[in-house]
Amino acid sequence: MIKVGIIGSTGYAGQELVRLLLGHKEAEIVWYGSRSYIDKKYYEVFGNMFEIVDAKCLDDNMEELAERADVIFTATPQGLCASLVNEEILSKVKIVDLSADFRIKDVSVYEKWYGIEHKSPEYIKEAVYGLCEINREDIKGKRLVANPGCYTTCSILSLYPLVKEGVIDPNSIIIDAKSGTSGAGRGAKINNLYCEVNENIKAYGVTSHRHTPEIEEQLGYACGKEILLNFTPHLVPMNRGILVTAYGNFTKQYTYEEIKAIYDKYYKDEHFVRVLDKDVCPETRWVEGSNYVDVNFKIDERTGRIVVMGALDNLVKGAAGQAVQNMNLIFGLPETMGLELAPMFP
Amino acid sequence: MIKVGIIGSTGYAGQELVRLLLGHKEAEIVWYGSRSYIDKKYYEVFGNMFEIVDAKCLDDNMEELAERADVIFTATPQGLCASLVNEEILSKVKIVDLSADFRIKDVSVYEKWYGIEHKSPEYIKEAVYGLCEINREDIKGKRLVANPGCYTTCSILSLYPLVKEGVIDPNSIIIDAKSGTSGAGRGAKINNLYCEVNENIKAYGVTSHRHTPEIEEQLGYACGKEILLNFTPHLVPMNRGILVTAYGNFTKQYTYEEIKAIYDKYYKDEHFVRVLDKDVCPETRWVEGSNYVDVNFKIDERTGRIVVMGALDNLVKGAAGQAVQNMNLIFGLPETMGLELAPMFP
Amino acid sequence: MIKVGIIGSTGYAGQELVRLLLGHKEAEIVWYGSRSYIDKKYYEVFGNMFEIVDAKCLDDNMEELAERADVIFTATPQGLCASLVNEEILSKVKIVDLSADFRIKDVSVYEKWYGIEHKSPEYIKEAVYGLCEINREDIKGKRLVANPGCYTTCSILSLYPLVKEGVIDPNSIIIDAKSGTSGAGRGAKINNLYCEVNENIKAYGVTSHRHTPEIEEQLGYACGKEILLNFTPHLVPMNRGILVTAYGNFTKQYTYEEIKAIYDKYYKDEHFVRVLDKDVCPETRWVEGSNYVDVNFKIDERTGRIVVMGALDNLVKGAAGQAVQNMNLIFGLPETMGLELAPMFP
Amino acid sequence: MIKVGIIGSTGYAGQELVRLLLGHKEAEIVWYGSRSYIDKKYYEVFGNMFEIVDAKCLDDNMEELAERADVIFTATPQGLCASLVNEEILSKVKIVDLSADFRIKDVSVYEKWYGIEHKSPEYIKEAVYGLCEINREDIKGKRLVANPGCYTTCSILSLYPLVKEGVIDPNSIIIDAKSGTSGAGRGAKINNLYCEVNENIKAYGVTSHRHTPEIEEQLGYACGKEILLNFTPHLVPMNRGILVTAYGNFTKQYTYEEIKAIYDKYYKDEHFVRVLDKDVCPETRWVEGSNYVDVNFKIDERTGRIVVMGALDNLVKGAAGQAVQNMNLIFGLPETMGLELAPMFP
Repeated sequence: MIKVGIIGSTGYAGQELVRLLLGHKEAEIVWYGSRSYIDKKYYEVFGNMFEIVDAKCLDDNMEELAERADVIFTATPQGLCASLVNEEILSKVKIVDLSADFRIKDVSVYEKWYGIEHKSPEYIKEAVYGLCEINREDIKGKRLVANPGCYTTCSILSLYPLVKEGVIDPNSIIIDAKSGTSGAGRGAKINNLYCEVNENIKAYGVTSHRHTPEIEEQLGYACGKEILLNFTPHLVPMNRGILVTAYGNFTKQYTYEEIKAIYDKYYKDEHFVRVLDKDVCPETRWVEGSNYVDVNFKIDERTGRIVVMGALDNLVKGAAGQAVQNMNLIFGLPETMGLELAPMFP
Repeated sequence: MIKVGIIGSTGYAGQELVRLLLGHKEAEIVWYGSRSYIDKKYYEVFGNMFEIVDAKCLDDNMEELAERADVIFTATPQGLCASLVNEEILSKVKIVDLSADFRIKDVSVYEKWYGIEHKSPEYIKEAVYGLCEINREDIKGKRLVANPGCYTTCSILSLYPLVKEGVIDPNSIIIDAKSGTSGAGRGAKINNLYCEVNENIKAYGVTSHRHTPEIEEQLGYACGKEILLNFTPHLVPMNRGILVTAYGNFTKQYTYEEIKAIYDKYYKDEHFVRVLDKDVCPETRWVEGSNYVDVNFKIDERTGRIVVMGALDNLVKGAAGQAVQNMNLIFGLPETMGLELAPMFP
Repeated sequence: MIKVGIIGSTGYAGQELVRLLLGHKEAEIVWYGSRSYIDKKYYEVFGNMFEIVDAKCLDDNMEELAERADVIFTATPQGLCASLVNEEILSKVKIVDLSADFRIKDVSVYEKWYGIEHKSPEYIKEAVYGLCEINREDIKGKRLVANPGCYTTCSILSLYPLVKEGVIDPNSIIIDAKSGTSGAGRGAKINNLYCEVNENIKAYGVTSHRHTPEIEEQLGYACGKEILLNFTPHLVPMNRGILVTAYGNFTKQYTYEEIKAIYDKYYKDEHFVRVLDKDVCPETRWVEGSNYVDVNFKIDERTGRIVVMGALDNLVKGAAGQAVQNMNLIFGLPETMGLELAPMFP
Repeated sequence: MIKVGIIGSTGYAGQELVRLLLGHKEAEIVWYGSRSYIDKKYYEVFGNMFEIVDAKCLDDNMEELAERADVIFTATPQGLCASLVNEEILSKVKIVDLSADFRIKDVSVYEKWYGIEHKSPEYIKEAVYGLCEINREDIKGKRLVANPGCYTTCSILSLYPLVKEGVIDPNSIIIDAKSGTSGAGRGAKINNLYCEVNENIKAYGVTSHRHTPEIEEQLGYACGKEILLNFTPHLVPMNRGILVTAYGNFTKQYTYEEIKAIYDKYYKDEHFVRVLDKDVCPETRWVEGSNYVDVNFKIDERTGRIVVMGALDNLVKGAAGQAVQNMNLIFGLPETMGLELAPMFP
C-alpha cells in the first residue's frame, strides 16, 4: 500500500486527487494538507466526502510528511514546491509536483514567464516531465516528477505526432484553447464569481499565458529544434474540460489516411488517448471525470492546413489523473490502476 | 457473472446504468436495447463510451432477451414494461422496471394519474417496491422489482422516519422538489432545449404530478393510514440532482436531539443515506455521480414545523444506482457492489 | 431632470440602477459611488458601460452628495444607510434605501434578525415601505423610502390578495423561494464562485432568513394581525430571477373563478403585475430584465390548499427597478417611466 | 410609422426582432408570421410578451404581407426567402432577409456550400450586403438587403481594418469562433437539448461551415483579391454571444499605436463598434442584449502575428439588431433608433 500525502488538498485538483485515490487499490491517503483549513474536517470543506473521509486537514509540513508518506503530491501555487524540496526530503519520498516549478528546463524562461525566482534550480535537471505517453520510461522509479499543465497536456498530445513526423511547420502552429472554470482555481476572486463567469466567454493571457513556453519546449523536443507558436486560452462557463483547437500548415499534401496512420502509430496502444473516428469532433463532455484525451483532426485542402482538436478533463488527465498515472509509473504499478473510470455523462 | 440486458439504454437513465455496470465486478451487459438506434454502435450515441463499449444497439425483443440475460432493466416510458411482461418471461429472467408500471398497488390510481390502461395488472401484486432501505428483505430473490421514481425516492427517504414515528401530521406534508434537467429525459422537445431551460426556474405539474400518489402510498404504509399531501416539482438549470424541501407540522414539541435520534434509528447503518451534521443543508453537488441520499432537517420553533431536506442524484439513487442496488439484493450480492463511487465535484 | 446619486454603484443592484437610469428620460446620474473602486472609471469595472458612461467612481460622501443630487439610492450592505442619514441630509435630498435598514418598523425585530444595532431608529417611523403596488399613495413626495427586499416583493405580491381577502389561513403559509445568484451579491466569497454554484441547488438560511420578518410584517398589515410563516430560500445556478412557490390552507372552498376574481380585483390595473392565464406557471425567464412580476395559482381540491407562484427579476422589480418606480412616485413622474422594457429572452 | 411584417417570428432571431421593434418609436409590427404556431397567441409561445403583444401568429403569406407592410423581415431557414420573393412583392415592400439567400454574389458558391438550389438568382445582384458599417451608403433606400450572418458580422468587423490596410496577409487568417446556443436555432433536436449542450464545448462544421465563403467574399472585397481562410465555429454553453479570436501574419512590423490608429480610422465614429482600451479583451457578457461589437487586438512580437478579438450578441448585432439598423438606413431614420440599449449584465 502506497502512503500518499497531498499538499494543497482543498483546491480543485487536490480534491480530485482525493476522489481518484479513494478508488485506487494500492494507495492510501495519509495526509490531507491544507494551509487554509488546518484542523477542519476534510468533509466540512467538501461535503461529498462526508462519511467517506474522516480525516482533518493538516499543515504543509513537508519534513514530517516525508517521514510518513511514500509519495507527496503538491497541488499548490507556483513556487511552493520549489521552496520546500531538498535532498533530505527527496531521499525519503517521491514527489509529483502539480505546479509548474519543475516543468521548464531553462530556469530563466521559468523566471521570466512566471515572474518569480526559482528556489531550487538544482533539481530542475533531475525532474522528469511527467507526460506519461511521451516520457513513460523516464518516469519509472524517478523521485521528482513535474506533472504537466492542463492546457499543455491537451496541446502536446494533440499535436505531438504531427510535429514529431514533420507533417506541419512547427512555427505555423496556432493553439486556440478553451477551459472550464475549475482551471481558474478555488481562490475567492470577483472574476471567478458565478455571475461573472456564467453566460460569458473571453480570452485571457493573450500572447502571454505561462503554458506557452512549456508547450514550445516539449514540441521543440519532438521536432528537434526551438519553436515559437501562438497559444490563446479562453474561459468557458462550465466546471470541467479543456478543448484545444490547433492549426498548422502542412509541409506537403497529406491524405486523411496518411495522417490517421501517423496518429495510430503513436496512440494505437495508448489506453488514455482515443483517436476518434473520421469526422467526429472531440467534445469535453465525453471525457468528463475520466483520464482520457480525445483527439481528432480535419484536413483543409483549400488552405493547406490541418485543424487538430483535443479534449480532456482538466482536473483528471490535466492534473490529478495524470498525477496518479505518474505515481503508478514511479512505483511500477499498472499504469491505469485507479483510473479506469468511464466518463460521466451528462 | 450476472448477464444484464437493458431496454432503453440510450436514455439518460439507461446510459447511467451502462456507466455503473461497467464498474460492477459481477455484472456484464449483454444487450444494449434501443429502439431508436438499432444497429448503431452504442459509442456513436454516447461518445464517452468510445473504446469502452463496442456493442451495437439492439431492439426491444424481450423474449430473446429473456433467453440471454439473467436480469432485464427496463428504462423505458410508462406502459412499455407492463405490455411486454408475461409468465414465460418472468420464469426465465428477473426484471427491474425503472418505469412506474408496477409501483402503485391500486391499478385505478395508476390509470387515473398516468392516463393509460395497465396491460398486466396481474403482476402488480407480485411486484415489490424497490426502495431498498425500506423493503430490503422483500426484494431479495424477487423476480419483478418496481424501481422507485427519482422524486419519490428523495421524498420518501427524507420523510420516512418522521412519518413512521408519528412526529408530524402526515396530512400537513408539503413537498417542494427541484430537479436537474436530465430528469426530463432525452426526447427532442422544444421545452428541453438549452436556451429554454438555461437561466430559468419554473414549477410544473403543480398539484398533478404523477409521483404524488406514489409518495402518498408509501408514506401511507409508514403511518398505517391513507394520506394526502402536496408535491410540487421544479425544473432547475443543471444536469443532475434532486433537492427536496419538505414541511410538516409537529404533532408535539421536539428537540433537535430527539429528531436526530429518530433519523439515526433508521439510517445509522444505511450506507447510502447520510444524515448530515447539525445545520448543514443537503446540496445536490455533494451527491453527484453517487448513490448517496443526503438528508437533514431544521426545527422551526416559531411555527411548530419541521423543514426536511434531501438531496440525491436523480440518475443514480433516483434511477440507475438504485436499480443496481436492487439487482444486488435480488442476486444476493453485497448491496453496495458497483456503487461505491465517491461523488464527483465540481 | 432629476439628479441621481448612487451609493454602492458597483454591486449588481447598483449597476442595474445605472442601466435602467441610462434609459430614463427624466433622470441623470451625477454620482457613481463605490468605496471599493474610487477613482476608477466606471466602465473599467463594468465593461458593458464602455463608451456609455465616462464617469469615475466616487466615495460615499453623503453630505456632498446631498448637495449635488435630488435623490440618493443606497445599494449598500445593511447598516450603512442608517449610519449616514440625518436631518440635514434628509432636508436636502430624497433617499431610496435598497438595504433593509428602514423596512421593519419594530427596531428590536430588525436588530434581532440582522444582528446589528440600528444607528438611526428615529427615522424608521417616517420611512415608507416602498412596495409601490400596495403603498403607492404613501410614497408620493416622501423623503425616505425603504425599498423592499427581492424575496419579499415576490412573496408579498404573490400572496397579498389572498391574505387581504381572508382566503387562506395566514399562519398556514409556507413560502419556498428560489433565487438566481446575483442575489448573493458581488463579494469575493468562495461560496459564490462559479464552480461552487454551478450544477447545484441548495437551501440556505432555513428558518432564519432575514426576509422572513419583513414578509410577516407586511402580510400582517394585510390581514390585520400578527402572523408567523415559513420562508425557505434556495440558491439556483442562474444569474437573475426569483421564483416563489407558496402554499396556504383555504379558509373555505373556492373555485378557480373566485380566486381569479380576487387577483384581478387587486392587479387588473397594475402595469407591472401580470396574473397569468389559467394553468400557466410563472417562469423567471419571462420576466428577465423587466420590472414585471408574474403571478398565478393552482387550487388543490384534494388537500384543500392553494399553490401560489410568483416570478420576478431580483435585480429589477426585486431591487433597482422598484427603486426607480419609487423615484417616479416620489417625484410625481409617470410610474412606469424608464421601466417599460420588454423582458429579454433567451 | 413603418409597418413591419416578420416571417419566422417564433425563432430566436424573430423574437428578438419583436423585442427590439417594441422599443422602436417609428416602427409597428403588423404581422407575426410563424408557420408552426398559426392562430396561437404570440405570448403563448413567448411568455415574456404577455400583456405586451396581443396578436396571433399568422402564416407566411408574402403576397398579403406585401400589401400590409412597408418592410418584411425574413428570419427563416435558408431558401425560403429566395423562393418567395418576386418583382411584384419587391415593388411593394422592402425586404431584409436574415437568411443567407442573398449574401453571396456567386450563386454557384451559395449552392455548393448550402447544398440547395437558389430559387431567385436574378435578385442576387440587386441585393446589398447589409453590413451597415461597411456598406452604409449602399443600403439607403434599397429594397432588398441581405442581413449578414452572426459569425460573419463579428469576423469581418474584427478583421476589416487590418485587411483593408494590408496589415496582415489575408491568406494567413485563421478565425476561431465561439457561439452561444441560441445561434443553433429553436428546432427540437437532441443535439440542442439542455443536457447535451450544458457542461460541454465542441467545434463543429470544421473546414466546412457555411459562413466561411461569406467571410472570404467580404474580406476579399476589402483587399481587392480572392482569399482563402480557416474558420472554425464552436458551441458554448450559454444563451447569447459570439466571440471571435482571429490570427493573422503581419506583412511587416507594427507597433500597438500604429494598429490602434488603423482601427480608429475606421471605427472612431462608429456608434456600434467599440475598440477597447489597450490589453482589455472583449467578452460576450459586455455586449449582451445590445447592438455593440467590441473589438481589440494584441500584437505577438515573438511570432510576428496579431491576435484579434471581437464580441457581439448573435441575436442583436448578429441578427435582429443589425436588421433593424438596416431598416433604419433603408427608410432614412437615425441609424441607432431603437438600438440604444445598454448591454444587460449579469
